[in-house]
Amino acid sequence: MSKEKKINKNNSVGIVKAQGFNFESLKLESGEKFGPVTLVYETYGCLNKDKSNAVLITHALSGDAHAAGLHEGKDNPGWWDDFIGPGKAFDTDKYFVICSNVLGGCKGSSGPASVNPKTGKPYALDFPLITINDIVNAQKCLVDHLGIEKLLSVVGGSMGGQQVLSWLVNYPQSLRSVVPIATTIKHSPQQIAFNEVGRQAIMADAHWRSGNYYDGPAPSKGLAVARMIGHITYMSDKSMAEKFGRAKKGTGESFKFTADFEVEGYLRYRGDNFVKRFDANSYLYITKAMDNFDASGGRSFEDVLQGTQVKVLVISFKSDWLYPAYQSKEIVKACKLAGVETTYCEIASTYGHDAFLLEVEEETHLIKHFLKKMLYAYEVTGDYGA
Amino acid sequence: MSKEKKINKNNSVGIVKAQGFNFESLKLESGEKFGPVTLVYETYGCLNKDKSNAVLITHALSGDAHAAGLHEGKDNPGWWDDFIGPGKAFDTDKYFVICSNVLGGCKGSSGPASVNPKTGKPYALDFPLITINDIVNAQKCLVDHLGIEKLLSVVGGSMGGQQVLSWLVNYPQSLRSVVPIATTIKHSPQQIAFNEVGRQAIMADAHWRSGNYYDGPAPSKGLAVARMIGHITYMSDKSMAEKFGRAKKGTGESFKFTADFEVEGYLRYRGDNFVKRFDANSYLYITKAMDNFDASGGRSFEDVLQGTQVKVLVISFKSDWLYPAYQSKEIVKACKLAGVETTYCEIASTYGHDAFLLEVEEETHLIKHFLKKMLYAYEVTGDYGA
Repeated sequence: MSKEKKINKNNSVGIVKAQGFNFESLKLESGEKFGPVTLVYETYGCLNKDKSNAVLITHALSGDAHAAGLHEGKDNPGWWDDFIGPGKAFDTDKYFVICSNVLGGCKGSSGPASVNPKTGKPYALDFPLITINDIVNAQKCLVDHLGIEKLLSVVGGSMGGQQVLSWLVNYPQSLRSVVPIATTIKHSPQQIAFNEVGRQAIMADAHWRSGNYYDGPAPSKGLAVARMIGHITYMSDKSMAEKFGRAKKGTGESFKFTADFEVEGYLRYRGDNFVKRFDANSYLYITKAMDNFDASGGRSFEDVLQGTQVKVLVISFKSDWLYPAYQSKEIVKACKLAGVETTYCEIASTYGHDAFLLEVEEETHLIKHFLKKMLYAYEVTGDYGA
Repeated sequence: MSKEKKINKNNSVGIVKAQGFNFESLKLESGEKFGPVTLVYETYGCLNKDKSNAVLITHALSGDAHAAGLHEGKDNPGWWDDFIGPGKAFDTDKYFVICSNVLGGCKGSSGPASVNPKTGKPYALDFPLITINDIVNAQKCLVDHLGIEKLLSVVGGSMGGQQVLSWLVNYPQSLRSVVPIATTIKHSPQQIAFNEVGRQAIMADAHWRSGNYYDGPAPSKGLAVARMIGHITYMSDKSMAEKFGRAKKGTGESFKFTADFEVEGYLRYRGDNFVKRFDANSYLYITKAMDNFDASGGRSFEDVLQGTQVKVLVISFKSDWLYPAYQSKEIVKACKLAGVETTYCEIASTYGHDAFLLEVEEETHLIKHFLKKMLYAYEVTGDYGA
């Protein structure tokens, strides 16, 4: 997403370190057994004695385990640092916050760039086609490993929200609440189309070589184009107009197709930056998992949710045209029809899909209150809803 | 655009033939003198004795001079065949209809793929950077050549609409009316961004070789990606949902990133088809001309239109998010403030931007009535408004 990060050192979780969790194997939805598996994760705050204050944060397409604080010697805070820390939405004085890089990713967790122990070379396209449910099943192994029987909440936006819905459907007994943000039960053809064009851009790059590029130059140009497409869909017509207008850059370059407009320079910059930190094959695998995901598993989402005791807070944003509010309303409707205790808020924002990273105040207000209620309910009843 | 063509032979203009118009040179907006210039054009219907029934149709990004009828031995009708013919919106029993391929294009008119007489090789990037006004100035030479002093109307959608606005601003004395459809005074950053990503996709293709690909393989993969991005923006979330849903294709292929969803197959097919008929460098030049265009020339559009006697019909479409209705309303507002006689219609359609090609009935009704009024006014007054 297109947020420019700033850190407020007063309420930062400070210096953090990623950890690795290795386990032998994971049975994938396809039936295939994949292993060994590594998940890289970070935690912030302390797990309380009865392990009732754990919140799992799930990241979006280009995210990673580094959700908050700083890595030693680095100055770029985690991707959701505005939300995680003392006194923030995920108040680390109260909650134990976990975030892991997704299976199939490229920030430490097993993915196509990882070395296949059978060959001693990167998996590339030998990496199995994974699903959002596989990603969540791997997270469940991590949560079990941390000794947490019941998560206070699972919270995430965009693809993170797809994982949230997968948790809700597959592990309702292991959750007290969920917060799916700016997400959908299943991708629309338009969402699939944008991802597909990104994949095509990567595969069109001569350096991609059917995914076997790890011993040579990466398909950076293709990946940059994919990222640029993404960035347009993360913003709104209005937020772009406000940020760039038709201002031109004084580049002094004479090339005919130079980036004249500021918006062009911005997209090129974002695209070029992304390729330094992301693996093109991971982009293919993860977007495919997003497109294939259907939280309702082909049934009606209402039926799937019958009997669920999990509490739900759904958040969407007015100007988000990539994951439009009507998709969040579909989640809310199914929850309500299934008798699930659900709160919905559509936040007025001009930021587009990026709003889930940028509307700090509004989201903090909603999430803070919701989590407090969940924790309080637990403390009062011992096991709320069980 | 993404229309699948059918032809109704009963009211077709029949077999048509493209013609070429060559002239020595054109002074470009940049000050550069470019020549020789070829414009390829087609005409339908007959020019009346007092040359008062000529209508110029301007085409969109991927269009050409072949707007109606059939070429000998071919079975694909012109791109606006539903609108041009006996009894249609542009009734060829009444009007003399002209359509020319734009300067910078690749369907016969001078463009980057044309041979530079100085070198005997294709211009490639030595072709000058052209503007929408240059395109229109070249069309004006053609209209003069045809001996038409005053066009009854200039009509076009999308980039065609930008040309319409350029005509309105630059040649108000040579027009009785204009019909800008699904267009804008100037591109928003979002519109620029989509074009820019398309250009980046082309230039990322290893075959592009700084535009010098005419003696080798074309940058087809990059151009296909550009076209796929375009197609998403031409449709709407709703029209895609209606056309494709989440239906999967039974391809039987085993490749991991095959086109599983119908929408993916459709985009790949459209992308692959486009590269057979379009030149990648033309795509760069034309999209850049669109992005740089500002009908108001940096002033207020209202000021630019002061004193104009031309009659205006503005048409937009409800689900068009690429050229949203608010942009058409800006045209209307400026016209009204300048005292220009203007009619506006926002057509309810779910087709998105493609609607200007597909909403035949509604558009026909509007255009037919408008043109009839223009012609009648001329016949009654001799020179309406002059």
